[in-house]
Amino acid sequence: MLELRLVQGSLLKKVLDAMRELVNDANFDCSATGFSLQAMDSSHVALVALLLRSEGFEHYRCDRNLSMGMNLNNMSKMLRCAGNDDIITIKADDGTDSVTFMFESPNQDKIADFEMKLMDIDSEHLGIPDAEYQAIVRMPSSEFARICKDLSSIGDTVVISVTKEGVKFSTAGDIGTANIVCRQNKTVDKPEEATIIEMQEPVSLTFALRYLNSFTKATPLSDTVTISLSSELPVVVEYKIAEMGYIRYYLAPKIEEDEDMKS
Amino acid sequence: MLELRLVQGSLLKKVLDAMRELVNDANFDCSATGFSLQAMDSSHVALVALLLRSEGFEHYRCDRNLSMGMNLNNMSKMLRCAGNDDIITIKADDGTDSVTFMFESPNQDKIADFEMKLMDIDSEHLGIPDAEYQAIVRMPSSEFARICKDLSSIGDTVVISVTKEGVKFSTAGDIGTANIVCRQNKTVDKPEEATIIEMQEPVSLTFALRYLNSFTKATPLSDTVTISLSSELPVVVEYKIAEMGYIRYYLAPKIEEDEDMKS
Amino acid sequence: MLELRLVQGSLLKKVLDAMRELVNDANFDCSATGFSLQAMDSSHVALVALLLRSEGFEHYRCDRNLSMGMNLNNMSKMLRCAGNDDIITIKADDGTDSVTFMFESPNQDKIADFEMKLMDIDSEHLGIPDAEYQAIVRMPSSEFARICKDLSSIGDTVVISVTKEGVKFSTAGDIGTANIVCRQNKTVDKPEEATIIEMQEPVSLTFALRYLNSFTKATPLSDTVTISLSSELPVVVEYKIAEMGYIRYYLAPKIEEDEDMKS
Repeated sequence: MLELRLVQGSLLKKVLDAMRELVNDANFDCSATGFSLQAMDSSHVALVALLLRSEGFEHYRCDRNLSMGMNLNNMSKMLRCAGNDDIITIKADDGTDSVTFMFESPNQDKIADFEMKLMDIDSEHLGIPDAEYQAIVRMPSSEFARICKDLSSIGDTVVISVTKEGVKFSTAGDIGTANIVCRQNKTVDKPEEATIIEMQEPVSLTFALRYLNSFTKATPLSDTVTISLSSELPVVVEYKIAEMGYIRYYLAPKIEEDEDMKS
Repeated sequence: MLELRLVQGSLLKKVLDAMRELVNDANFDCSATGFSLQAMDSSHVALVALLLRSEGFEHYRCDRNLSMGMNLNNMSKMLRCAGNDDIITIKADDGTDSVTFMFESPNQDKIADFEMKLMDIDSEHLGIPDAEYQAIVRMPSSEFARICKDLSSIGDTVVISVTKEGVKFSTAGDIGTANIVCRQNKTVDKPEEATIIEMQEPVSLTFALRYLNSFTKATPLSDTVTISLSSELPVVVEYKIAEMGYIRYYLAPKIEEDEDMKS
Repeated sequence: MLELRLVQGSLLKKVLDAMRELVNDANFDCSATGFSLQAMDSSHVALVALLLRSEGFEHYRCDRNLSMGMNLNNMSKMLRCAGNDDIITIKADDGTDSVTFMFESPNQDKIADFEMKLMDIDSEHLGIPDAEYQAIVRMPSSEFARICKDLSSIGDTVVISVTKEGVKFSTAGDIGTANIVCRQNKTVDKPEEATIIEMQEPVSLTFALRYLNSFTKATPLSDTVTISLSSELPVVVEYKIAEMGYIRYYLAPKIEEDEDMKS
């Protein structure tokens, strides 16, 4: 039997919004340690990994490991029916082919339960090795979202270049070129507004803006985003989920000759 | 001659918004006692009844009974040109085929008059007998609107079941099922947030969500909604209009076998 | 070399929004005295004239007169990437075929430069003679915008009639007629809310609402609008740009017989 009670239910709505654009169907894996998901996006280019640790739930009961295949759009339709202050409980009986989402209003006057059929989804769990990165940039998540959106109005790809002084985002398109430089800045009033660069060596990599823009759907989950870059590795764009875990996106850099991959 | 002056002109804009989705053309009936309307929706399934009593107007002159046929979309186009604080006056001369809406800004600096041709509309006035209902639910109108909207993302029809403990709204669709229970609750800080059930006997009836969603367009008119249910009668969904009257919607329950009526 | 630094960068975004609907491509003319533009709308019916005086810029360097052809939609795409509090600098080297827009965030942590190719645009500069107008109306710009929008839901053209008492806007269409009268009012608490009429003689002219609605895209630039009318002249609709200049729109009145010009 599975019963996971999350007081801050709106967090689960935000998690779904952060994945829904990239992934249609996915297995949620429940174990004693937490509620997690790993899935390729539908074009098999980007990877999403979610972890919500059991300690973050008010109540967490998972008698045995369970993998629940869900259509994220349908799940999102149901979660959108939860009020922003509602407590959400995820329930599944052993051997059942459905999952129930229960929403309780703060004053307990309104109680809703939504039952959804589960799906059989083939998936292989990729091992993601720990890696050393040449450069790690931590910056305000809203700033990163704004930059990806702005550059998308000019070009299709972005070159992210990190030096000790700052991180530069560049693009080019039919109407012109654009460069946006964010300087390292540790001395701000609010720590979440800092831009902090940990660099082993300068790095400059090219990515499809379309995917980065999808990643920024996680912005409501965290005030900051961490971007880890190495020449030979997929970039990792990570949003911490307070007290509970994270959502991470992986995307391989584009090779310069790779012009025909432009969407 | 007809001259009706309504200080709170925005109320008339809200009344139009509450009917416009259901009714295209309708006769407004003016008499010494008030300004009223009764109309079937364009698919002849639901009935709308409006009453604005003469006492609610700052000035109310209606020399003889008058029935004015109007296209609600055109009337709404004109009323949308009134500012939210404007005083609205409805005027018609005897024997004329047009109606004039006059809008005065609070400081009298701006005065607008909009003249609209009247239409000949065939309509029969249905007598709606007073009835005893098995159950009457009063609840916050925004809550009812939210529930109808939420359930529409899952299914096409809703089963409304009333017991002494509360009212349950249920639906089912391709992606799953949903139940929302609102418990009776009389002890809230604000009386308009109460959910109050007057019940002679339990009742459970099925309705098309599409119509209920149209009825909830009246939500801005009142903080609360009253839903009156009996097995053999159309449901009445009523929004009181403060000091003036009401807008009521009538809809026949669906018979269970009636599956092909699903829209 | 050209280098124009504007601390209140959001003003340039508003200027573009005020012209973009009317004009696709236009030459910006830079001289020692200011940054200006004159362009016909794409259907060659209305004329737009912009002036931003050099004194309004924090830094203004223009070594020699320069005419820079730009696509306003592309320029607007770039300016939309500037934050609302950003300082904007427009730069161009002598003999270059491109212009650079530089955006600096208030705390200097983020610096962006957008480079756009210039275009060759044929244009003739029309001399606009100073004229005496029969009537000049100054009124709140938001009020004028609201009136043009409201009347557009009824008809295609507006008759603007000025008398000593006030200004009347009238239209007619399939669903009826509308008249909106704004009375002269000099004694308001805030001067920008006044409606002031300077009149030599009464005047009544007809204009296409479609163009007036485009002119009102300049509303965010100024709290007031000035409308100058004479029977034999194009109307001038002017929005002052605080401390810097203005944007003016010119539109010829419609001749009454001109019914087939209705759009």
